[in-house]
Amino acid sequence: MVVQFKEENLMTFRHLFLKNFSRSSANTHAVYTQHDVYTHIAYTVEQFLMLPSITVGNHEYEKSGEVYTPLSICQQFYHNGSLSPANESFHIDTHVDEGVCSNTFTCTEPILRYTINYNMCVFAFVRLLAVTVKFTLKSINLETVQYHELPDCYVFNIMITFDNKPHSGRIGIELDNDVQINECSDWTVTGASARDMYIMVLFDVMVILILLLSLLLCTRSVKAGVLLQFEYAAFFSRRHSKRVSFSERMEFISGWYILIIISDVLTITGSLLKIIIQLKAMASYDLCSILLGTGTMFVWIGVLRFMGYLKKYNILIITLRAAFPNVIRFSCCAAMIYLGYCFCGWIVLGPYHTKFRTLNVVSESLFSLINGDDMFSTFKNMQQKSYVVWLFSRLYLYTFVSLFIYMVLSLFITLITDTYDTMKHQGLDGEPVSDLQAFIMQCKDLPESGRFSVNETRFLMCCCSHRTYGSDDDAH
Amino acid sequence: MVVQFKEENLMTFRHLFLKNFSRSSANTHAVYTQHDVYTHIAYTVEQFLMLPSITVGNHEYEKSGEVYTPLSICQQFYHNGSLSPANESFHIDTHVDEGVCSNTFTCTEPILRYTINYNMCVFAFVRLLAVTVKFTLKSINLETVQYHELPDCYVFNIMITFDNKPHSGRIGIELDNDVQINECSDWTVTGASARDMYIMVLFDVMVILILLLSLLLCTRSVKAGVLLQFEYAAFFSRRHSKRVSFSERMEFISGWYILIIISDVLTITGSLLKIIIQLKAMASYDLCSILLGTGTMFVWIGVLRFMGYLKKYNILIITLRAAFPNVIRFSCCAAMIYLGYCFCGWIVLGPYHTKFRTLNVVSESLFSLINGDDMFSTFKNMQQKSYVVWLFSRLYLYTFVSLFIYMVLSLFITLITDTYDTMKHQGLDGEPVSDLQAFIMQCKDLPESGRFSVNETRFLMCCCSHRTYGSDDDAH
Amino acid sequence: MVVQFKEENLMTFRHLFLKNFSRSSANTHAVYTQHDVYTHIAYTVEQFLMLPSITVGNHEYEKSGEVYTPLSICQQFYHNGSLSPANESFHIDTHVDEGVCSNTFTCTEPILRYTINYNMCVFAFVRLLAVTVKFTLKSINLETVQYHELPDCYVFNIMITFDNKPHSGRIGIELDNDVQINECSDWTVTGASARDMYIMVLFDVMVILILLLSLLLCTRSVKAGVLLQFEYAAFFSRRHSKRVSFSERMEFISGWYILIIISDVLTITGSLLKIIIQLKAMASYDLCSILLGTGTMFVWIGVLRFMGYLKKYNILIITLRAAFPNVIRFSCCAAMIYLGYCFCGWIVLGPYHTKFRTLNVVSESLFSLINGDDMFSTFKNMQQKSYVVWLFSRLYLYTFVSLFIYMVLSLFITLITDTYDTMKHQGLDGEPVSDLQAFIMQCKDLPESGRFSVNETRFLMCCCSHRTYGSDDDAH
Amino acid sequence: MVVQFKEENLMTFRHLFLKNFSRSSANTHAVYTQHDVYTHIAYTVEQFLMLPSITVGNHEYEKSGEVYTPLSICQQFYHNGSLSPANESFHIDTHVDEGVCSNTFTCTEPILRYTINYNMCVFAFVRLLAVTVKFTLKSINLETVQYHELPDCYVFNIMITFDNKPHSGRIGIELDNDVQINECSDWTVTGASARDMYIMVLFDVMVILILLLSLLLCTRSVKAGVLLQFEYAAFFSRRHSKRVSFSERMEFISGWYILIIISDVLTITGSLLKIIIQLKAMASYDLCSILLGTGTMFVWIGVLRFMGYLKKYNILIITLRAAFPNVIRFSCCAAMIYLGYCFCGWIVLGPYHTKFRTLNVVSESLFSLINGDDMFSTFKNMQQKSYVVWLFSRLYLYTFVSLFIYMVLSLFITLITDTYDTMKHQGLDGEPVSDLQAFIMQCKDLPESGRFSVNETRFLMCCCSHRTYGSDDDAH
Repeated sequence: MVVQFKEENLMTFRHLFLKNFSRSSANTHAVYTQHDVYTHIAYTVEQFLMLPSITVGNHEYEKSGEVYTPLSICQQFYHNGSLSPANESFHIDTHVDEGVCSNTFTCTEPILRYTINYNMCVFAFVRLLAVTVKFTLKSINLETVQYHELPDCYVFNIMITFDNKPHSGRIGIELDNDVQINECSDWTVTGASARDMYIMVLFDVMVILILLLSLLLCTRSVKAGVLLQFEYAAFFSRRHSKRVSFSERMEFISGWYILIIISDVLTITGSLLKIIIQLKAMASYDLCSILLGTGTMFVWIGVLRFMGYLKKYNILIITLRAAFPNVIRFSCCAAMIYLGYCFCGWIVLGPYHTKFRTLNVVSESLFSLINGDDMFSTFKNMQQKSYVVWLFSRLYLYTFVSLFIYMVLSLFITLITDTYDTMKHQGLDGEPVSDLQAFIMQCKDLPESGRFSVNETRFLMCCCSHRTYGSDDDAH
Repeated sequence: MVVQFKEENLMTFRHLFLKNFSRSSANTHAVYTQHDVYTHIAYTVEQFLMLPSITVGNHEYEKSGEVYTPLSICQQFYHNGSLSPANESFHIDTHVDEGVCSNTFTCTEPILRYTINYNMCVFAFVRLLAVTVKFTLKSINLETVQYHELPDCYVFNIMITFDNKPHSGRIGIELDNDVQINECSDWTVTGASARDMYIMVLFDVMVILILLLSLLLCTRSVKAGVLLQFEYAAFFSRRHSKRVSFSERMEFISGWYILIIISDVLTITGSLLKIIIQLKAMASYDLCSILLGTGTMFVWIGVLRFMGYLKKYNILIITLRAAFPNVIRFSCCAAMIYLGYCFCGWIVLGPYHTKFRTLNVVSESLFSLINGDDMFSTFKNMQQKSYVVWLFSRLYLYTFVSLFIYMVLSLFITLITDTYDTMKHQGLDGEPVSDLQAFIMQCKDLPESGRFSVNETRFLMCCCSHRTYGSDDDAH
Repeated sequence: MVVQFKEENLMTFRHLFLKNFSRSSANTHAVYTQHDVYTHIAYTVEQFLMLPSITVGNHEYEKSGEVYTPLSICQQFYHNGSLSPANESFHIDTHVDEGVCSNTFTCTEPILRYTINYNMCVFAFVRLLAVTVKFTLKSINLETVQYHELPDCYVFNIMITFDNKPHSGRIGIELDNDVQINECSDWTVTGASARDMYIMVLFDVMVILILLLSLLLCTRSVKAGVLLQFEYAAFFSRRHSKRVSFSERMEFISGWYILIIISDVLTITGSLLKIIIQLKAMASYDLCSILLGTGTMFVWIGVLRFMGYLKKYNILIITLRAAFPNVIRFSCCAAMIYLGYCFCGWIVLGPYHTKFRTLNVVSESLFSLINGDDMFSTFKNMQQKSYVVWLFSRLYLYTFVSLFIYMVLSLFITLITDTYDTMKHQGLDGEPVSDLQAFIMQCKDLPESGRFSVNETRFLMCCCSHRTYGSDDDAH
Repeated sequence: MVVQFKEENLMTFRHLFLKNFSRSSANTHAVYTQHDVYTHIAYTVEQFLMLPSITVGNHEYEKSGEVYTPLSICQQFYHNGSLSPANESFHIDTHVDEGVCSNTFTCTEPILRYTINYNMCVFAFVRLLAVTVKFTLKSINLETVQYHELPDCYVFNIMITFDNKPHSGRIGIELDNDVQINECSDWTVTGASARDMYIMVLFDVMVILILLLSLLLCTRSVKAGVLLQFEYAAFFSRRHSKRVSFSERMEFISGWYILIIISDVLTITGSLLKIIIQLKAMASYDLCSILLGTGTMFVWIGVLRFMGYLKKYNILIITLRAAFPNVIRFSCCAAMIYLGYCFCGWIVLGPYHTKFRTLNVVSESLFSLINGDDMFSTFKNMQQKSYVVWLFSRLYLYTFVSLFIYMVLSLFITLITDTYDTMKHQGLDGEPVSDLQAFIMQCKDLPESGRFSVNETRFLMCCCSHRTYGSDDDAH
């Protein structure tokens, strides 16, 4: 809701303060003549002055003490310089002057108490780098009242930039706002109860308590597993004089517990943050949502554990785990070629295609191409100014797509197929693959025989794995 | 045709009653200044008053008795309150007042007999929640006359909403209409015969009768199968003292018959509904079309049965049926991860990306991503306000696509391949897999031998499957 | 070029004769008020009257004798009728009156000699079905002069339709033109030679002659194959008393020759048509291009024959040919389910989604979905008026995509893989599979041994296949 | 940056000199009436005359000596001719007159010193082919100053073309500019140091030196490999009297070295070009970026070499190399069918679909279709004027997509799978496959034994491969 309020206000400011603004031209709003620049600024200032009588929202000017914060028009320009393109000559001082500058070139006296004489503004377009119009508005997000939350006070620092850096005859106009969210200082709300909020907090606290319990039990299990592993290692080196390999050691520690612990920690932290936010003490919504979201995802993946108890159901997990090392190795190799293409595309096609402007966008674009997205438009939007580059782009795209979709992806499928076959045959043969499994095999006592509860020492000697699985039931 | 008439009228109302409406801005029609709100309402009211002389359709005002139903302008506002964002203070009474309110703030006296003094409207925008303009129009859908159906009378309850709930400075405008369809009370149509309709109804009745016959025969076959199954189970437990497994019991009941029965029931119900609609007694077009549509689909799938008689043709059906249990198990596991991603995406990216607004849209969006659709635009439209969220979104999308397209989908293909191979080898070996098949194998008599018609009891003892297939020919 | 000229003229007429026409609203050009209808017609007529002074093209009015063909405004309306939606009553005579109607309702006197009194037009919108404005313009396509072809004379029959059939308050406006292309009757072109055209025709004739030769040789080869096949069949039934199977008979006839013959016939017919078109005797461009295009495609595919001479190269052709019967069988089954979904989608979703309007578009849309195209937008554009239909659409799309992409397509890949494996193993074993091959195997004489030219009878007894391959070299 | 400056200027000129220009209609800007043509030209000339007072960039007129380069309006028209479409007669002289023509038809006196009497322009639209407005502007790209580079002087030759070649009533308007980039002749920049540039150049020189060293070492290794191969071949033919096959000879030359050499050469050439560009001596940005980009790509792919040292990691490279011959053979066959479809689509659908206009675009479009992109829109945008062509297009698209996605691509995956299986089994057996490997096998001495450094002759006799791998370490 906070994000939406910010967004809608930004849209409102664009419609109020930018002349001829329309949603479709949001990114390319620009003026091309000197006259347009002056009228545009005049329009903005007039709209600002009339704001109280035109806005349909709660926008008000900011006040510091009794004085309203003024709107300020600033320009940036080269300190000195004269250009004569006709003679191919220029003399320029690249020091950039800013802000409330000398009288001759600027009109940047802050407009105090809303009297303005911006008509005296004369810009020297040849040296002009940018004009910025800045002002501050305040607002209250009343909508939250309906959800029994306290309204927040917002401070919008609005900055309109007329960008003439390229000196190409096109001045791009952009409106950006910087938002501060404060708790309002003085308020009364009647007609609504804030009780709901406390129920919410109570619920959150309960969630946290349950998760803490889960966390505790899982940690205990993991700890027990670690201890058992040490004992097993000691026992094994004593009896067989062999060192226990790392992968066997790892079998004592259930990956699922680690997953649950991570998920619990994330959710607890997220819930704590949520309580803090609800109590208006902090406002880091993003972090909170990322923590809670990732926590939820891990919880869902954790449900797969229970499916693993049913045979035949865990084929997805088993195959993925078995294929993991090969997939990682394979991906490393493929990533080299991928990165090669990324850098090459960025360097060569960068200036000619919006999809190759930054390295990050190149990567996204190529990734989409591999998955068959947006191919024709990528081909089509390549500018045809330079024939060499155009030819290169065709070669680049055809080879990239052919190589990745037809070769690398096919090989990937083969890898997975191969692992699945291996898994299936292994399941049929069922021979013990590690020392640990061979050791467990020796134990023929069934868990129900009751021998495991008599004596802790013998228990360890015999069938350690049973306790590991038995403690599952404690944990959840 | 009914749906199209509704749609075109909605479009007409938007063009007639909304100022500056254009098709491209349909979803984002909004005003940003107080002046615009007043002129917009004035425009709507004027257009409404002049309606008879401007409309090119059959729209007329509604009359209750002699009196025309008035247009009403309503506002919703907080009962009391004063805001001062500059001082960060607010005092608000969250009771919402509605409708024909106190004189000072509203102009909501219903406009009777089309005299209006809406100029006295003064909205307190600070407390205003919404303004709604409501009126009712009536129309007749004449187009149906050309198809020899009776025209219907439509009542359009039109509501224009100016939504100021967010108090963000942007008032969204929406026109919605609620349609009632009645049979007209008083009518004469000359120059056209309604005989065609009765032919239609006759045809429908014939279809229903044929389907009822098909339904009867299929039900008889299924019933015979069920009885046979019970006898077989009794016989088997008597002779071999073994219980017959569920899957063997199921082999007595042909899945195709179930399909035909479902398809018949759907089509019969749909046809009945269609007759009722044609006789103007009811108007649930959607239900009727869903019933008929699903029925048609099942009929087409049912055609596959006849292909099954030709060998080699039923490979699709056999493999799909064999792969079904594995596919379901596999899908359950994959669905867990999928749901995990859905929830995580909804919580974290919801406020920043339109494709993650609701859980349902998230699911559709991720499903499309798996199939390679719209990937680049999903990447691109992520708002870049918060760096953490932006980074998270990249991680989220890359891992999701890689996991699902490259791992899960590959494994899926492997599953199908594996089932196909199993099916093929099984077909070559051709050994009896169940008790039932072994039992049938013992019978060496050919169906033409005539032994099966002599004696019902011995028939059952010997080769029960023949009757099952024999009864096929009765059914269709 | 002809197609482009037609298109550009259509665009010109739309801009000239439709008020407020813009390219983006081409399909949805409509008016909503009575006033707009009148002004729109007035605008069209005025533009028509001023045409000679405003057009930048060669458009002129049509003349029959000395008299200019008039512009005519026609209306279609119900013969009689009164509607009162407010009272839910209507009395209508569904006879449709057309053309130059009674004085009170129409203004359809043909406008002769360009004097017009269209101001007297009064339409009874309640009964109005359509208004059509018709006129005829003539033009000459001068551009062809630059390519040394003779310019054609065009007659454009332009019809502007104001469609009020739905009586929904929206009158859609459409401009359509019907084009006749004639040879101009009276012309002189100086400064350009038409010699080039005759060179073109000469070239075409040469192409036809060469192709006729190729056609002749191929037909001879095929004929020889057919004769040989009959002799072989006779010989075989005499000697082994076995009937020769159809597939063995087919091996005598080279499929490549059939392809070349088809390709030759298509190209010859296409070239003949081209000559006729160039000589201005006929104008069926589409048929000509389809014939030549398909011919060219077959020629390219025919090149694969020469690749077949190199071993290992013809894997694509061999596998495709071997997989063909299975693929056809499989496609038949899949097509049943596909058609089921098509009909179901058409019936249920037709009125709610533009992609399901006609059965043909449904098929295209579902085909695109299988290949991963446009999925999210298909989900998104579903109208959400009816909840039941919305739910059905989700179910429909999810099941369709899952079934086809994940199951059917996977099975398809498996089919191809399986065929490839079979082909590979068969190639390794290399055992004779048919009687014909076994028969040929007996012959141990090498082609160079010269025994085959001595004696026609013994030749047949021994190794018939050599002649078949030998005649290859004659043909091309 | 240079590319962006060009683009922004082009956009500026379009907005300044074209009337009613908007970004969305950039490709379809056109006028349809005579009046519009005159006012459009007048607008352009007026804007040009007022340029100094309206532009926000650095644009100035060009001067040759003291005289400003004039704006010129030229028309192209047929020398003589009269058309009468109404009578279907025309008399035309196809000689095209250009430029400053006779007084009656043209106004093309160059506008000197900015006095203009363009009002006397009268175009004979019937014979008019094109009107072109040409002028020249100069500008300086100041933005580079901020990156401590010298600003360049730009000369823009702007040409506005009113194209009436088709004589269809639509005159398309296009603005194109031709850019020359010169070093400015006379300049002073204060307040900024150009020292950074020299550091850049120094860095580039260092890069070149390092790469030259790498190039030298690699070349030495390759040369050593070639010499060794000759010695081995001589030794082998002496000892075993066998010729060494080409593939065995190739094993002496490491493909990675070739890759490094190519990459080095590309990067060195690119860096040299970059230095030259920075020193303002040349301006072939495209070539430079292609060289550097391709170089970078090869460097990344070269990293795979180091992965090859770890076993299991080079599966991607090994499989791709093994599959290469089959893939090439397969692609050749598939390309034949692909080309067949390309030509056929171009010939038949060319005039009806923008995606089939040129052979190149057809290829891109079909390639995208294979990868599942843009399918529905391709179906949808097919014009439905001619029913035969429409039917053909459906047949064409369905068969193409089915054949390529379902058959050819499936077979491709099978090919890769097959190669992977072969590779895996070969790795398990590990038997020597070539004479060279068998020869090396005989040598049982370990590299550490020190025997290889004693004696160059015996070394060669015994284990030549060690040196090859030993020299790896020298190279990098």
